[in-house]
Amino acid sequence: MASPEIEALTSALARLPGFGPRSARRAVLHLLKRRESSLGPLRAALTAVEERLATCGTCGNVDTTDPCAICSDPRRDPRSLCVVEDVSDLWALERGRLFPGRFHVLGGRLSALEGVRPEDLAINSLIARVAGGQVDEVVLAMNATLEGQTTAHYLAERLEKHRVRLTQLAHGLPVGGELDYLDEGTLAQALRARRPVA
Amino acid sequence: MASPEIEALTSALARLPGFGPRSARRAVLHLLKRRESSLGPLRAALTAVEERLATCGTCGNVDTTDPCAICSDPRRDPRSLCVVEDVSDLWALERGRLFPGRFHVLGGRLSALEGVRPEDLAINSLIARVAGGQVDEVVLAMNATLEGQTTAHYLAERLEKHRVRLTQLAHGLPVGGELDYLDEGTLAQALRARRPVA
Repeated sequence: MASPEIEALTSALARLPGFGPRSARRAVLHLLKRRESSLGPLRAALTAVEERLATCGTCGNVDTTDPCAICSDPRRDPRSLCVVEDVSDLWALERGRLFPGRFHVLGGRLSALEGVRPEDLAINSLIARVAGGQVDEVVLAMNATLEGQTTAHYLAERLEKHRVRLTQLAHGLPVGGELDYLDEGTLAQALRARRPVA
Repeated sequence: MASPEIEALTSALARLPGFGPRSARRAVLHLLKRRESSLGPLRAALTAVEERLATCGTCGNVDTTDPCAICSDPRRDPRSLCVVEDVSDLWALERGRLFPGRFHVLGGRLSALEGVRPEDLAINSLIARVAGGQVDEVVLAMNATLEGQTTAHYLAERLEKHRVRLTQLAHGLPVGGELDYLDEGTLAQALRARRPVA
């Protein structure tokens, strides 16, 4: 059909999450018709990222510097450490600038099913950071899934003997959540963690 | 949040059809984690296409050569010309290698609403190709929309005085179509164009 170059671009795009062969073709056509405004900028952005891409040796964030912008920001409290499963979780928290401390990215979650063991995650480096003595509080910000919570429990055990305050994200009603539409697990958590009206 | 380079890549991806800010972020994370297998190939594919991208001066197809692979293929019948609205329509027909002749891409459809006039489309170059005398049949393969059919009518009028056979795509039941689920317009067309059972 199209030239090998165009075919190669289509299949490279089709491998992105959220894209299939059909939507990749639509995107390629969009790019081909907008060489200056779309194709060029995307190519330049990819090239720039590829050239400068780095994984932060301290926290595991992906950035274009090592240490990353968060780890090297003096305004961020090094005594407060938020542990997340994945870079996407770090980004989600950073989007709202919700956490004033620093991060630690595990690179996944413990999973018997998928064969992910503690040594597959950045747990030893977390212990080392905490053992360094600079950290006062560790927030275990795992996902509210079975595997996320298993990971949090495992980390809590490993960190017990270090003198840090261990906390985890609150569970309860999401903002805008209607009781009628929420699952029993969420309702049970919200009820169990009920607070006095201020 | 992320570095300016990563932000630039996210917003370049978010402008593609089918992508929004959230899915673009997911795609960027996918790329960042797969530098060798995903980011590199995509960047290389974009660079190759950008360097060699060309619009065929004969038919209006986008390809990496001018004339395009179809126009320069001696096995394709130059006497048969299929007129389509857009490059995406040409690709749709080529995907099934359905048409053995050559193409002509109008670059859109007549639309009073969007202010698209005949001089905005590649109609004069179509007339010139037909007037050249090499063409026996022109297939008007417009979309089965109001604007597509208006365009087809307009082209039919303009081509009337040239000695070519004018045809258009058949309308009727799509393969796998169930009567109960089809609109009245399609059913009316299918009934009007009914054929004797062979």
